[in-house]
Amino acid sequence: MNNDLILLGHGSGGKLSHQLLDDLIIAKLSRTPVRGQNDAALVELAGAKLAFTTDSYVVDPIFFPGGNIGDLAVNGTVNDLAMMGACPRFLSVGLILEEGFSKAELAAILDSMAAAAESAGVSIVTGDTKVVPKGKGDRIFINTSGIGVIEHTLTIDGASAQPGDQVLVNGSIGDHGIAVLSAREGLEIDSGIVTDSAALNGLVQELLALGESLHVLRDPTRGGVATTLKEIAAQSEVNIVLDEESLPINLGVKGVCSILGLDPLYVANEGKLLAIVAPERAGEALEIMRRHPLGKDAAVIGEVTGTADGRVQMRTSVGGLRGVEMLAGEQLPRIC
Amino acid sequence: MNNDLILLGHGSGGKLSHQLLDDLIIAKLSRTPVRGQNDAALVELAGAKLAFTTDSYVVDPIFFPGGNIGDLAVNGTVNDLAMMGACPRFLSVGLILEEGFSKAELAAILDSMAAAAESAGVSIVTGDTKVVPKGKGDRIFINTSGIGVIEHTLTIDGASAQPGDQVLVNGSIGDHGIAVLSAREGLEIDSGIVTDSAALNGLVQELLALGESLHVLRDPTRGGVATTLKEIAAQSEVNIVLDEESLPINLGVKGVCSILGLDPLYVANEGKLLAIVAPERAGEALEIMRRHPLGKDAAVIGEVTGTADGRVQMRTSVGGLRGVEMLAGEQLPRIC
Repeated sequence: MNNDLILLGHGSGGKLSHQLLDDLIIAKLSRTPVRGQNDAALVELAGAKLAFTTDSYVVDPIFFPGGNIGDLAVNGTVNDLAMMGACPRFLSVGLILEEGFSKAELAAILDSMAAAAESAGVSIVTGDTKVVPKGKGDRIFINTSGIGVIEHTLTIDGASAQPGDQVLVNGSIGDHGIAVLSAREGLEIDSGIVTDSAALNGLVQELLALGESLHVLRDPTRGGVATTLKEIAAQSEVNIVLDEESLPINLGVKGVCSILGLDPLYVANEGKLLAIVAPERAGEALEIMRRHPLGKDAAVIGEVTGTADGRVQMRTSVGGLRGVEMLAGEQLPRIC
Repeated sequence: MNNDLILLGHGSGGKLSHQLLDDLIIAKLSRTPVRGQNDAALVELAGAKLAFTTDSYVVDPIFFPGGNIGDLAVNGTVNDLAMMGACPRFLSVGLILEEGFSKAELAAILDSMAAAAESAGVSIVTGDTKVVPKGKGDRIFINTSGIGVIEHTLTIDGASAQPGDQVLVNGSIGDHGIAVLSAREGLEIDSGIVTDSAALNGLVQELLALGESLHVLRDPTRGGVATTLKEIAAQSEVNIVLDEESLPINLGVKGVCSILGLDPLYVANEGKLLAIVAPERAGEALEIMRRHPLGKDAAVIGEVTGTADGRVQMRTSVGGLRGVEMLAGEQLPRIC
């Protein structure tokens, strides 16, 4: 492994991504030291409290069961804004097209973007298109950046988890990663799983009713639930214990994971959020989720167990405790 | 030419780009019909008037005389905000890295981004990094999106040019395109030309003193001065006549253009703006430019001649008038 070069694992969302981010990118670009990252930046402008975020999408293949790179790019950026408790409003779209890409496929992707934006209640207001020569790109890469308005006064932040808090998820985990993987050339597994890609801003608006009891919101995309919880545990300086039996996992996901030796805890989601909530209102949070179309299979999956060094553990179905680490390399490249 | 596929020319900024944009991208993504485009979208959020823009940078080579893809990506997006008369404030950075890209080159690019942001007075507040397998990208692509605040009440817009207005540019044209071209593999021409890449927001702040006499600001990047003026003439439904003798063009640019059969009027700029100003204050506008470090070679280069069908013409040095068309195909691919 050459330490001077960029590796696929630097894009995994896991440990290598964090190293590159901390040692190089944030070290170079940020004027002020940052402890942990959230899904979007909070900025104040002319008296308005805004959230601002960006994401590039390089998923392969670009069409997969239940969606394509277009709706993924809209939902992903909407969700990054929503995880700050912001109301997503405006998106930009930057297209990098490879020479020879099909206009019909582009049209289908744009249709999906428009439908996803409509459904999430956001407007695509500005854009840019570049074309690179054949062999210098891969059909289509999409960047979406987004602006949302923050209308609450809560501190919803990866650093706000507190001992005793309950960890909730709004449904089954690993669906997006397995849907993309099953469509990938050379694999073509019929898992019956479709992506969970969806805009979570509507569900988040409901969860804001929890007020100051709502401590953390985070969408477990690249790196999955395990990596996201490790990030939160480190940012909040707490430990988290997950309960294996309570994790909602579809049978198809379990099947593909066991065949390929993957752990669903590390597989990407695109329509899931982790909510960390004060214990006295965790029941209410679960009810809010289950009433929502995107939260029917919501579950309490773990607990914040004490202030400490950022450990995440899993209580297994046989009663033992095993350590959960951050994704180390690249489990599934180009999953989003 | 297969009409079903994306061609390099669709990224030129010229006629093919406009067709793709109008026929497909805007048709699919925009909820409301758009007549012509500006460099950034104007949006209102929580009482604040904002400009929002995005650009992806795929320049080849990534290092060229006077700059690299990093400062280019910061300056370009700062300028798109400035052209709306906005004060640029926050940037996002989306990196798409190719597996095997050098960390040392990445570090140098990030250093340039930080320096350019510092110099333009903007903060990089959020980002994203993706990695694609070797051969599926080209070293590094950068998306920068930006937010600026609009503090004036003027209508600075591509549709605001009026008969009699004077057309000004803040200095020599074509430098960026020729600097990049001269560094391109296989050409390696020693033209002595360096990119003009620079943040124009400081100069724009000075020009705002012109008040309602400042009608249009636009930076002539891809497609050059010719394409940008054609866009403005169409948006404003006016004709524009350029004066060939008054166009500031460096000798090195003239030389390379004559060898390669290029027209400097179509070559990209990254630190230039076209200002279209009411005639009674054109002299003052020229003075403001010439007092500014980025406007020493500013010139009045043309005039808006009447309401009409969007024609742009050039009064040549021998006194004739020739038509100036929009860039038809791809003159210089991957110039930004």
